[in-house]
Amino acid sequence: MTFSKRLYDRLQPVWRRNHAHPFVQGMGDGTLDLEKFRFYMIQDYVYLKDYAKLFALGAVKSDDLAVMGKFAALLDSTLNEEMSLHRAYAARFGITEEELEQAKPSPITLAYTHYMLHTAQNGSLAELTAALLPCMWSYSEIGKELSRLTGASEHSYYGDWIKMYSSEEFGELAQWCIGLLDQLAEGKPEAELNRLEEIFLNTTRYEYMFWEMAYRMESWPDD
Amino acid sequence: MTFSKRLYDRLQPVWRRNHAHPFVQGMGDGTLDLEKFRFYMIQDYVYLKDYAKLFALGAVKSDDLAVMGKFAALLDSTLNEEMSLHRAYAARFGITEEELEQAKPSPITLAYTHYMLHTAQNGSLAELTAALLPCMWSYSEIGKELSRLTGASEHSYYGDWIKMYSSEEFGELAQWCIGLLDQLAEGKPEAELNRLEEIFLNTTRYEYMFWEMAYRMESWPDD
Amino acid sequence: MTFSKRLYDRLQPVWRRNHAHPFVQGMGDGTLDLEKFRFYMIQDYVYLKDYAKLFALGAVKSDDLAVMGKFAALLDSTLNEEMSLHRAYAARFGITEEELEQAKPSPITLAYTHYMLHTAQNGSLAELTAALLPCMWSYSEIGKELSRLTGASEHSYYGDWIKMYSSEEFGELAQWCIGLLDQLAEGKPEAELNRLEEIFLNTTRYEYMFWEMAYRMESWPDD
Amino acid sequence: MTFSKRLYDRLQPVWRRNHAHPFVQGMGDGTLDLEKFRFYMIQDYVYLKDYAKLFALGAVKSDDLAVMGKFAALLDSTLNEEMSLHRAYAARFGITEEELEQAKPSPITLAYTHYMLHTAQNGSLAELTAALLPCMWSYSEIGKELSRLTGASEHSYYGDWIKMYSSEEFGELAQWCIGLLDQLAEGKPEAELNRLEEIFLNTTRYEYMFWEMAYRMESWPDD
Repeated sequence: MTFSKRLYDRLQPVWRRNHAHPFVQGMGDGTLDLEKFRFYMIQDYVYLKDYAKLFALGAVKSDDLAVMGKFAALLDSTLNEEMSLHRAYAARFGITEEELEQAKPSPITLAYTHYMLHTAQNGSLAELTAALLPCMWSYSEIGKELSRLTGASEHSYYGDWIKMYSSEEFGELAQWCIGLLDQLAEGKPEAELNRLEEIFLNTTRYEYMFWEMAYRMESWPDD
Repeated sequence: MTFSKRLYDRLQPVWRRNHAHPFVQGMGDGTLDLEKFRFYMIQDYVYLKDYAKLFALGAVKSDDLAVMGKFAALLDSTLNEEMSLHRAYAARFGITEEELEQAKPSPITLAYTHYMLHTAQNGSLAELTAALLPCMWSYSEIGKELSRLTGASEHSYYGDWIKMYSSEEFGELAQWCIGLLDQLAEGKPEAELNRLEEIFLNTTRYEYMFWEMAYRMESWPDD
Repeated sequence: MTFSKRLYDRLQPVWRRNHAHPFVQGMGDGTLDLEKFRFYMIQDYVYLKDYAKLFALGAVKSDDLAVMGKFAALLDSTLNEEMSLHRAYAARFGITEEELEQAKPSPITLAYTHYMLHTAQNGSLAELTAALLPCMWSYSEIGKELSRLTGASEHSYYGDWIKMYSSEEFGELAQWCIGLLDQLAEGKPEAELNRLEEIFLNTTRYEYMFWEMAYRMESWPDD
Repeated sequence: MTFSKRLYDRLQPVWRRNHAHPFVQGMGDGTLDLEKFRFYMIQDYVYLKDYAKLFALGAVKSDDLAVMGKFAALLDSTLNEEMSLHRAYAARFGITEEELEQAKPSPITLAYTHYMLHTAQNGSLAELTAALLPCMWSYSEIGKELSRLTGASEHSYYGDWIKMYSSEEFGELAQWCIGLLDQLAEGKPEAELNRLEEIFLNTTRYEYMFWEMAYRMESWPDD
């Protein structure tokens, strides 16, 4: 059994909670409050800027030219292409570029990104990959699940989100990441695999809390 | 005006919320539920293990032998003395060493420690100091404020906590840290001072959320 | 006076030694022993793989989207384009891809890359930029100086090296880096500027030692 | 076979060159030029300040309280005790504290420390331990070998060096470090063991180059 299969099987109960979250379901059936989605988009933009740094750290932590090159391409396309798509998408919701650039992370956004950033910078390439995978993998799965709902991909607001994450291209990216983790985990002693599982569990949980934060539009207690 | 004075003045509203939190007030008047304190002690132990790593990173980031030596002494006394005091104190509440060693961080503990750890490892010594200071400084202030309440320091459970953090020794440590930040901030351009203020604000806020987490005994959504 | 001008003026004597090195002069007048150049190319390839990591760390250390995006593009083009140009160029000298991939760093290559890598990972974006600049800047200057020598750019072996580093594109890259350092240095207290100068001096010196290592084809004492 | 035994066996030829170096032999038979030893002491002091940072990073990279505590104690005793012993010893050779504090690293000192620092900060605890071990282990062996030479430990200048590193206390420290590496290497896949061996080999080689640098009193080309 591959390591990713082991993770997937063991963490099904936690994993399924993410898919069942009302924010996710609301995108699928079109009932999600636009205000909540706006809150999400802004925090997602703040998140993505730090998430991209994980790709940069992937190039630092690897010594395999092919893996370094792939992380480099990912970093470049995220910062120099994807973020402008996000800005264009956000504009359709009346969110300006200034709003995106000046947005501050909510407590959960800051928690989630800095947990990943420290894990990536302090740990091994395997640990980095275990940290960044749940976001990519679950978005790919959620995208595909929601795209099977009638009319979901054509929704005037949420359709594009679903199309982006259910795309073949995004699916291949998630598969590459899964394959990388499997390859890096191979032959590692059980104590190290447990550590990878712990990281994967924690970022899966922060995924849930990110949906929850967006759904409740939660900011700092003193804000 | 010193930089620490500027921080203190600007952040008073946020700062005071920490002192006013029912968990803190409950230690002062002795009404705090023991279960909540037990929850706090365990998470505080988990927190302290990572907080100590900030001292280690302080020795890495500095090139001044006196500062390096001070961080080294702090690291050593935290790991080789203070943590055993914590274990002894916890035992009085029926918390075993195994429970402490096997405890897992709650979402807020993980968020708070990893925000500090990444800030420390990725940033400058000034940024590291801005991250670790709110915990030390606010504990010293809270300790002193509670110690002025009649009978608080003699409380059979919470008295020792108050005595520890209102002690002269702990106050001197907080003062050293404040002095270090002032010295490191000197002459820095405004953009960098703003960054230090942002860090100080974020960890001050996580202090509040830590009290809140303990008061509500909050763990992971799937726990 | 810009900070880069200050560096340039103060370090002229060290800087000129690099340009005057017999390896550099030998590329210009075509008298350089091919064996020495082969040794250089292999070590340069090993060097470049780690040098690229500085661009990745640049994207990690910055919080300005434009700067992050520029470092991302640099990382991507270095790993996914430039290195294959190096492989093609090396093939003309009978150096195979296997030889390049399996090459081990000499003591000076390892010293130089790890000095930069630690400075970049442990320090600020300004320190990172001070570390990576001498290579880029001096190559741009050397390229331009050698290109003015009659016939140098048409030399059947060294001409392409001279054309690459005297190109407008490469010159613009060096200028971007110089501008970034000037911008980051602005308003910093003198103690921090001295630290940047120290880093710039050390990597300028390692540049010299890299030429010297290639000229003497120096490996480990036990090799 | 333990991993340390494998390293020791495989690297004997490189290892023995260190012991056979004229600087080392000259301390043993008392013929070493005092000027060379003075040069060594100053560079060793500069080295030690960065070497101590590896202990700090050991406390950061570990999650085992006992290992963290041991590294913390080592860091504390190095900075707060050992370095003052070094200052006192250096004073006997007419080297002042100012000279020690203001000394700049030679190219090999900078190379060696930064290779270790980057390996430690970027890599795992096992990689950190593989980097710091050759210095400790070879000093312990050299100390013991030289102490068996008649009169060596009583030499008015070099005797104290030999006594320090042949002491039981120092031997136990080296043994602890060897045991830690063996424990961390257990069960790791061969590719990771090869990486540890490469690190151990590189720092063993830099040990040789450090003796050589001291023997030749080598500084920067432009100094």
